[in-house]
Amino acid sequence: MAHSPATSVGIVTPQVFHFKDPLILRSGKVIPNYDLITESYGELNKKRDNAILVCHALSGDHHAAGFHSETDRKPGWWDSAIGPGKAIDTNLFYVIAVNNLGGCGGSTGPTSINPINGKPFGPDFPVITVADWVESQKRLMGILSIKQWAAVIGGSLGGMQVQHWAIEHPKKLKAAICIASAAKLSAQNIAFNEVARHSITKDPNFYEGRYLEHDSRPKQGLMLARMIGHITYLSDSAMRLKFGNEFADDQLKLEKNVGRNLKSGGLSYGLDVDFEVESYLHYQGERFSNNFDANTYLLMTKALDYFDPSTDFDNDLSKAFANASCKFLLISFSTDWRFPPERSRELVEILLSASCNVSYLEIEADEGHDAFLMPIPKYMEALRAFLSNIFVELKTNAS
Amino acid sequence: MAHSPATSVGIVTPQVFHFKDPLILRSGKVIPNYDLITESYGELNKKRDNAILVCHALSGDHHAAGFHSETDRKPGWWDSAIGPGKAIDTNLFYVIAVNNLGGCGGSTGPTSINPINGKPFGPDFPVITVADWVESQKRLMGILSIKQWAAVIGGSLGGMQVQHWAIEHPKKLKAAICIASAAKLSAQNIAFNEVARHSITKDPNFYEGRYLEHDSRPKQGLMLARMIGHITYLSDSAMRLKFGNEFADDQLKLEKNVGRNLKSGGLSYGLDVDFEVESYLHYQGERFSNNFDANTYLLMTKALDYFDPSTDFDNDLSKAFANASCKFLLISFSTDWRFPPERSRELVEILLSASCNVSYLEIEADEGHDAFLMPIPKYMEALRAFLSNIFVELKTNAS
Repeated sequence: MAHSPATSVGIVTPQVFHFKDPLILRSGKVIPNYDLITESYGELNKKRDNAILVCHALSGDHHAAGFHSETDRKPGWWDSAIGPGKAIDTNLFYVIAVNNLGGCGGSTGPTSINPINGKPFGPDFPVITVADWVESQKRLMGILSIKQWAAVIGGSLGGMQVQHWAIEHPKKLKAAICIASAAKLSAQNIAFNEVARHSITKDPNFYEGRYLEHDSRPKQGLMLARMIGHITYLSDSAMRLKFGNEFADDQLKLEKNVGRNLKSGGLSYGLDVDFEVESYLHYQGERFSNNFDANTYLLMTKALDYFDPSTDFDNDLSKAFANASCKFLLISFSTDWRFPPERSRELVEILLSASCNVSYLEIEADEGHDAFLMPIPKYMEALRAFLSNIFVELKTNAS
Repeated sequence: MAHSPATSVGIVTPQVFHFKDPLILRSGKVIPNYDLITESYGELNKKRDNAILVCHALSGDHHAAGFHSETDRKPGWWDSAIGPGKAIDTNLFYVIAVNNLGGCGGSTGPTSINPINGKPFGPDFPVITVADWVESQKRLMGILSIKQWAAVIGGSLGGMQVQHWAIEHPKKLKAAICIASAAKLSAQNIAFNEVARHSITKDPNFYEGRYLEHDSRPKQGLMLARMIGHITYLSDSAMRLKFGNEFADDQLKLEKNVGRNLKSGGLSYGLDVDFEVESYLHYQGERFSNNFDANTYLLMTKALDYFDPSTDFDNDLSKAFANASCKFLLISFSTDWRFPPERSRELVEILLSASCNVSYLEIEADEGHDAFLMPIPKYMEALRAFLSNIFVELKTNAS
């Protein structure tokens, strides 16, 4: 039983925090006030020092674990890692996940109503950076009267927030867990993001971002963006395992999608979907385009592209981490080609050169970038062991 | 001087061949008659045994070398390899390149007028396979009274045509040169092709393929398709070299596109183009979308997806090559991730298991899949040496 307290955080209810003070963004623009929607799991202890902040990636949100109702069948996006007895153990830690500013999960973002004109912000919502998110999360920390996170943890874009926490607020976290991330996107990654943005902004239903006012949505553009993303989050080997076995028994064989417009040889000889992988991508793209806001997608990809903490430190990343004092755990996955192990190893070297305390683990996994969401035993064990040590330190300090 | 006879085949004039007999396609559909546009370089000898057929890839055509006029500044797509004294030496060989059926370079294709209704074929042009192309090329061979090609040569989709020649007409070629290709696309490759097709067919100016009748063109869709293609034809390392230097001098640095809507830190904090790689992709996509036919793009990607010679041989590729009797040269490039060296090595193993005569070379190159179009010295030298041996054999047989 998925909702059972033994294996799950169970039914969770999001909580909204309102922030009245203006937030000055990196761009110079100002958000006069804003909401952050959160979920939390486990109990904050008396000393308020067992809190873990979970930062989400491009399409994630605050719903990281558990279910929203008894009939809810799909748990939060990181339910495999967060829960009682799980790697991020809610019996030990208070875990809080935030939907980032600019998101579409309930925090103030492009779909929120702009008080100035009573219409959705849409494209008027300013470009947000990782630094802005961290600042907004620090205010949340203040409201919760938490002086130091036991850990800040995130994968991909979430890992960038982790890095920024360690750089900008070195005393405010005991540990930084940065998974399948990079200190900066590669040109290839930026290029994929740009194609995704292009597909959204050139959709005739985009209306320069004011699609909600036109009772419209750039579904095709968002679907395409997601299809591109999906290919790049999976590894070639993951696709092979999922959609076909190659050279099995000395044979070249890719599963064909039977049952659709089939003529000779099982192929349509038309522009229809012929292969499993095509219908899978259509399905994924379609589902996503029904549930996600296009302007948020644009903001999230720009935040990825812009992340480069070295720019505040004469383009010297080791200077950026010079004051970092938390313990670091970095994890990468062998077949992740959007955030490959090289990027993590480069970051490990930088951290070592800045005399940081770093553990690094490269996990063998077929799932590409998506592996960071999977309950791969070695990966879960590494998280668990690292966090156990942090917990022991908390208790030692307490006694 | 690029047009100089010492370094170039000079000014070339395409030649159109008309084929009156119906061509029955793999799909069962029939092309009643068709034109093939070609270019040739060098002289066909008396024995008519020094002819090399060059097969083009997805966006290529018959204009493989030389210039179309004295003022023409851009040579054919493989000018670096074809010419007097070059790797494919026109002093020794007669080289002919064909625009494939379904193309948009002058051979019968979707932009040709359908004699039945006087309108462009558009989406009524049937799906063409590699096998169909090879059949159409065999008829060209007949018209030219060539009994055996000295070599059939091609990269990527061109390499698939090379494979099919070797399988289907083993006695009609002395040598097969298959570059940066595969015996079958991976699921990932099919997925990228499907996204490209999706972006074209969902463009509101596509009009279900009848855009020419609507005096329209799905430019945005084609541009997106090309942008996706372009990212995947380049390697991550090529992009890094071209658009930014990463961790040079222990620094993370990606060249930013200055001079555009710049605010703090050189970033626009908008959805504008911020990075060199973005403007480069825009430029490439834009240029391509002005010069290429969208329906042809769809047909070419389907031909790629469908290629799988094993299906005619109980899904056993080594059976497919059992009768092949030509010499094979396979070449792959280290950073090509769309047609990676593994795919070529798998094919080499299959060819060896079928007791074929195979040479294989893996070239270190930064340029990804695009490397097959580059005059990389080791690569050119391998082509030259292999073809020199073929030439010596021709002379030996002749004496």
